[in-house]
Amino acid sequence: MTIATAASGVIPPVCTPLTPAHEVDTASLTRLVDHLLDGGVDGLFVLGSSSETAFLTDGHRRTVLDTVIGHVAGQVPVLAGVIDMTTPRVLDHVRAAVAAGADALVATAPFYTLTSPAEIAVHFRTIAARAGLPLYAYDLPVSVHTKLDAALVLDLAAEGVLTGIKDSSGNEAALREVLLGRRDRGIASFSVLTGSELTVDTALWMGADGVVPGLGNIDPHGYTRLFHAASKGDWTTARDEQERLFRLYDLVKVARGRMGGGSSALGAFKAALHLRGVIDHPTTAPPQIPLNAEETARVAEHLTGAGLL
Amino acid sequence: MTIATAASGVIPPVCTPLTPAHEVDTASLTRLVDHLLDGGVDGLFVLGSSSETAFLTDGHRRTVLDTVIGHVAGQVPVLAGVIDMTTPRVLDHVRAAVAAGADALVATAPFYTLTSPAEIAVHFRTIAARAGLPLYAYDLPVSVHTKLDAALVLDLAAEGVLTGIKDSSGNEAALREVLLGRRDRGIASFSVLTGSELTVDTALWMGADGVVPGLGNIDPHGYTRLFHAASKGDWTTARDEQERLFRLYDLVKVARGRMGGGSSALGAFKAALHLRGVIDHPTTAPPQIPLNAEETARVAEHLTGAGLL
Amino acid sequence: MTIATAASGVIPPVCTPLTPAHEVDTASLTRLVDHLLDGGVDGLFVLGSSSETAFLTDGHRRTVLDTVIGHVAGQVPVLAGVIDMTTPRVLDHVRAAVAAGADALVATAPFYTLTSPAEIAVHFRTIAARAGLPLYAYDLPVSVHTKLDAALVLDLAAEGVLTGIKDSSGNEAALREVLLGRRDRGIASFSVLTGSELTVDTALWMGADGVVPGLGNIDPHGYTRLFHAASKGDWTTARDEQERLFRLYDLVKVARGRMGGGSSALGAFKAALHLRGVIDHPTTAPPQIPLNAEETARVAEHLTGAGLL
Amino acid sequence: MTIATAASGVIPPVCTPLTPAHEVDTASLTRLVDHLLDGGVDGLFVLGSSSETAFLTDGHRRTVLDTVIGHVAGQVPVLAGVIDMTTPRVLDHVRAAVAAGADALVATAPFYTLTSPAEIAVHFRTIAARAGLPLYAYDLPVSVHTKLDAALVLDLAAEGVLTGIKDSSGNEAALREVLLGRRDRGIASFSVLTGSELTVDTALWMGADGVVPGLGNIDPHGYTRLFHAASKGDWTTARDEQERLFRLYDLVKVARGRMGGGSSALGAFKAALHLRGVIDHPTTAPPQIPLNAEETARVAEHLTGAGLL
Repeated sequence: MTIATAASGVIPPVCTPLTPAHEVDTASLTRLVDHLLDGGVDGLFVLGSSSETAFLTDGHRRTVLDTVIGHVAGQVPVLAGVIDMTTPRVLDHVRAAVAAGADALVATAPFYTLTSPAEIAVHFRTIAARAGLPLYAYDLPVSVHTKLDAALVLDLAAEGVLTGIKDSSGNEAALREVLLGRRDRGIASFSVLTGSELTVDTALWMGADGVVPGLGNIDPHGYTRLFHAASKGDWTTARDEQERLFRLYDLVKVARGRMGGGSSALGAFKAALHLRGVIDHPTTAPPQIPLNAEETARVAEHLTGAGLL
Repeated sequence: MTIATAASGVIPPVCTPLTPAHEVDTASLTRLVDHLLDGGVDGLFVLGSSSETAFLTDGHRRTVLDTVIGHVAGQVPVLAGVIDMTTPRVLDHVRAAVAAGADALVATAPFYTLTSPAEIAVHFRTIAARAGLPLYAYDLPVSVHTKLDAALVLDLAAEGVLTGIKDSSGNEAALREVLLGRRDRGIASFSVLTGSELTVDTALWMGADGVVPGLGNIDPHGYTRLFHAASKGDWTTARDEQERLFRLYDLVKVARGRMGGGSSALGAFKAALHLRGVIDHPTTAPPQIPLNAEETARVAEHLTGAGLL
Repeated sequence: MTIATAASGVIPPVCTPLTPAHEVDTASLTRLVDHLLDGGVDGLFVLGSSSETAFLTDGHRRTVLDTVIGHVAGQVPVLAGVIDMTTPRVLDHVRAAVAAGADALVATAPFYTLTSPAEIAVHFRTIAARAGLPLYAYDLPVSVHTKLDAALVLDLAAEGVLTGIKDSSGNEAALREVLLGRRDRGIASFSVLTGSELTVDTALWMGADGVVPGLGNIDPHGYTRLFHAASKGDWTTARDEQERLFRLYDLVKVARGRMGGGSSALGAFKAALHLRGVIDHPTTAPPQIPLNAEETARVAEHLTGAGLL
Repeated sequence: MTIATAASGVIPPVCTPLTPAHEVDTASLTRLVDHLLDGGVDGLFVLGSSSETAFLTDGHRRTVLDTVIGHVAGQVPVLAGVIDMTTPRVLDHVRAAVAAGADALVATAPFYTLTSPAEIAVHFRTIAARAGLPLYAYDLPVSVHTKLDAALVLDLAAEGVLTGIKDSSGNEAALREVLLGRRDRGIASFSVLTGSELTVDTALWMGADGVVPGLGNIDPHGYTRLFHAASKGDWTTARDEQERLFRLYDLVKVARGRMGGGSSALGAFKAALHLRGVIDHPTTAPPQIPLNAEETARVAEHLTGAGLL
């Protein structure tokens, strides 16, 4: 299924369940996909940051693509991350994603290297020219250490290079600059998705088309209720739902201090999915440190508090 | 050839010549290796940052490994970079480097993800356990966005996990902390190499064992003269040579402002190698912008000024 | 006039008009105050970042306090910035502000020095204990290079140390953490003001009590319309007004690149006030570079486009 | 005493002893000055970062200036920090320092505000024009969040605006760029002092004229031995002395983690001066947290290890 128009709605970044031996747990992965589809999501984003894509070998990545695209079988579009340091390495991932039947691609600016805006433009143009699929820019300064400039994003959108953006910058004024620029310049079919799962109601209020919430793995129903309420103009319900999800998000802090913030968050997501019976193992990829029993118990409390256990 | 003891001397990070179609130019690469061996270098570091490793596909990386290791044929040790985001992806590069016959491996801390010191330790321990080859830590905060802690490095050295470090942090006090800590704790066979090509005389003076100079691609003879002078205790000659090389290094600035600092430096290095007749094309990998004619002419002036053209 | 309860509504950070000789232009300053009062603002914040407080000597600061507090004469509360590097220096400004009759104080975390959260708590507690006036924390990481932690802010609010916060961090998820934490912990009389003038509608929607908009100097009527619409639950009007102001804000970019972002913004604000006839000179404090004629003409175009000229 | 030529040698940044009530302890301050003069220092730098200048009110600063300049009575030059956010505020400190009889001034680039290189140049030019005293640039990116550009520093030196630089950036390649640029451009009477107290031998080896070591408060004799050895070309003795001082410097870490790095270092310096009997109280300025008994005991161990107790 190719996305004729740009993506919208709730498109969670799908966690990648692992076996204790650190292989992709495909049985758990298909259960997770079913859990998300049951939650009413509008699409799936595989191989994003919440998918631990930085920790997955090329072999793991192919297994994820084949498993999810095969299991979804066109029910919703599947966007595939093609995350790597620079254009040539990204193009290898593009070939794999296209071969697997992805509906769209998601790429960051170059990282590890020191590039400039002109080179970021070359990067996206080259990927789009080779891919033959809709391309989304992924703005994630916390990982990439570059903030995509709104004017550059809009130029690439107007050129047809970019089909959309997943904005995980947390910079809501910059998000609004893209949203107003899209309207003022009359750029049709450009999808603006927020990756900031704690300000979804306000992003939609400002004009965003959808959300890519990591927390949506745990509670997809919550995010689809939020989105549908906002779509109907029932903003108060949308805000109530967002505030409930905001409080639930506190579970990412259970192990902070004892490990990096990323490991704490991914570990808590997987512990929650394991506690809810969706995946078989809470295993995260090395070199991440696993949550201990006390931290896992606190994740359980958060789930109970949110009515999810 | 396995490195029985830790590496020392001049070990340039070998540039990766490319064809205009962005494939590895193996003929130029072997000429570059000969140029470096002729310069009297003590080892070669392939697939480092100056090798544009961030821009090379896995296929390109294998070609580089096979070409260089095959051509060197044991004359000097070849250290291979295994640069990627996290442990599982690094391990794939480890397997390729081991299969190709590398003498030692060079790995950074995880990047793109947010890790903690405890997880960085797991990372290096896992790589060392799997590799069966000497492992060097590569400290490059400008790319990795983490500074390796001196105490952690020394602990891993004392454990036998790390055989050495390539310190490109530019933090000379932290370098000295490793050097004094090595001595005070009596850690034998731990090699400390500086990647700061502009302060080599002082790094050696403080006790470093060698240098990994990107500029050594252009003027390996200069860096080996510097090292040999320092080894003999002729520090004045070492400083004079370093100051000459410092001025030559100015060529990295020719395109700064028009592109990123990395592209300007790598473009200038390749332009210089092309002008000196070592490689066939000054091509850099996408999405880097090529130097223009005026910038290339300024590189030529720098070479002429240094007596290299 | 002392603020019995915490501040709310539109409280612009008042620009500090200067003479060409770089003295405070008190005649222009009183006209600016009248312009803001005519705009219906709910309070005034003097000696904040938009007031160029970093560029004002202690003498200038006293002149500003005396001029504004004297002229306002209790019509609205006047909050006074006490911006300096550490506690002892801030306390000197506190004494001056109290003597001048300020209604409340606004202080940042320490800067220039490297402190810790525990020391930031000591800082605010010491100021509050000495001041005898309501104290607002000013969260401005772009200047202070520390982000105030939401949990610390809430603890200090619950203790009665802080009466409110001006959040200029641009981090809307962190703003929401304070807002929800205030509600969940039942902290009464704690005022949350956003300094992010481009996302005021959404900040109010999330529960913020007011806004401190630099751009409110130029168009106070716009911000009070926005606030009043939001207060009545007419969010569509609030958003329309915010989007109009968002486009107007583009004037801060007219000189970017030729000077620092701060100088470009402050220069554009003062040029706009001069063009609108509110202040006599567009002079900014040294070492800021003045806008040139072409840049000033572009400010005028922005004003015309917004119906303000 | 005015410095006819640029400063050189060992010029410690003088700590500011405080009473338990946080007033300047002038008796201890004069003892500290005597301790430093006894150590053979070549000048004194008051009101620098190690002097807790960021924590001193204007009144405290005047007391320090009067006490030290009066007590020194021309035996060595006294350089006075004029540290504040921007030009107008710095100029107020300049007036006070000139009135007190300082021999030279030391100023950073603007901080808290966002400036540009062109504005930094205006800043230093304005200060130099008003001061009528030699002006030193203070490069301290950890506090100022701007790195002074070597080319700009050299231009201002060639113009006669700057008499010298105190480089505390820790960037030894950039330090060398200034040193070689000074030589290549034939800039006479421009003094380059390193503030990096752990790499003094190598900075002198590269051509620096002197050092401004915070640790020199504790062990001035060590730093003057280091400098004199280097001056005579006895680099091995210089290095041995530096290595001994390097190990002593570890005392700054005794309280790290429990407080900010700055407070830990300043607290350890003052504890050491107190333990050595130089000052009456180890008090640091608020909001800094004091060292506890166990941390103080560890400072004592460091002193004993270095033969200073």
